[in-house]
Amino acid sequence: MTGLMRSVAAWIDNLLADIITEVIMSVRNASAIWEGDLQEGKGNMRLGSGAFAGDYSFSSRFKDGKGTNPEELIGAAHAGCFSMALAHGLSQSGHKPNRIETTANVHLEKAGEGFKITAIDLNTEGDVPGVDSATFQKFAEDAKTNCPVSQLLTGAEITLRAKLI
Amino acid sequence: MTGLMRSVAAWIDNLLADIITEVIMSVRNASAIWEGDLQEGKGNMRLGSGAFAGDYSFSSRFKDGKGTNPEELIGAAHAGCFSMALAHGLSQSGHKPNRIETTANVHLEKAGEGFKITAIDLNTEGDVPGVDSATFQKFAEDAKTNCPVSQLLTGAEITLRAKLI
Repeated sequence: MTGLMRSVAAWIDNLLADIITEVIMSVRNASAIWEGDLQEGKGNMRLGSGAFAGDYSFSSRFKDGKGTNPEELIGAAHAGCFSMALAHGLSQSGHKPNRIETTANVHLEKAGEGFKITAIDLNTEGDVPGVDSATFQKFAEDAKTNCPVSQLLTGAEITLRAKLI
Repeated sequence: MTGLMRSVAAWIDNLLADIITEVIMSVRNASAIWEGDLQEGKGNMRLGSGAFAGDYSFSSRFKDGKGTNPEELIGAAHAGCFSMALAHGLSQSGHKPNRIETTANVHLEKAGEGFKITAIDLNTEGDVPGVDSATFQKFAEDAKTNCPVSQLLTGAEITLRAKLI
């Protein structure tokens, strides 16, 4: 190639990289409404996809009242992201899972005058043909460290228990 | 009081503090199942309260497919926690809100070989009798900084726009 051709080729490469970067970005949205004060007010959280809208309250968050709360939404997001990432890691190494099932326990504790989400415990079970326990453990640790939601939730300690079934 | 009575009183105070600390902690849970590999597999995320269970997939997370995704669950949790905290701050200062409504936009971007949740944009509107714009702004900034979910999501940049309506 001539110098000019090389320059043009590099320019096209960069342009394509920019376009791909643009495409591989998504913005998801959700919303919430709160009416009134903390103890007697009421709220509703809604997913942008329309898949879910649910009421929450002081009681459903800090006591045993009926309704949802932000912490269990965080737990679902984390369990969902982790399970997908673990299945991907295993599949890429030739061990496509039949099923990964993960529970997330999200701890909310009093801290000073406020509250803090201190820890998230992931507990995962895998039905994965042909993989040994040490390999499964390794991929589970990888997913715990690197999945996008784990990378986001750096304000809490994340623990993991993983076993093959 | 005698020295003994003071010791007993202090012991009871500490005991009560321990009991209260124990009570004011909640553990919420949620779970997820993933079957198969990344591109063709399928998943389901479920809240521990039973308020919601929804399907997700590669397509509903990274493209425009039908279903939910972890990012919009994070957005709902953040919008919900922030709105509750803002209403609490305003109420404590004597400005109980009629209504706080917040949208969260959650950005998921390609980063190296994986993905990263890079930013969360909170956009809040308040119907709050008797409060001025600067005071509303101050309480909104406080909630953005201090609400438990903001404190958890330290892996992303959080931005805020707040206005009275």
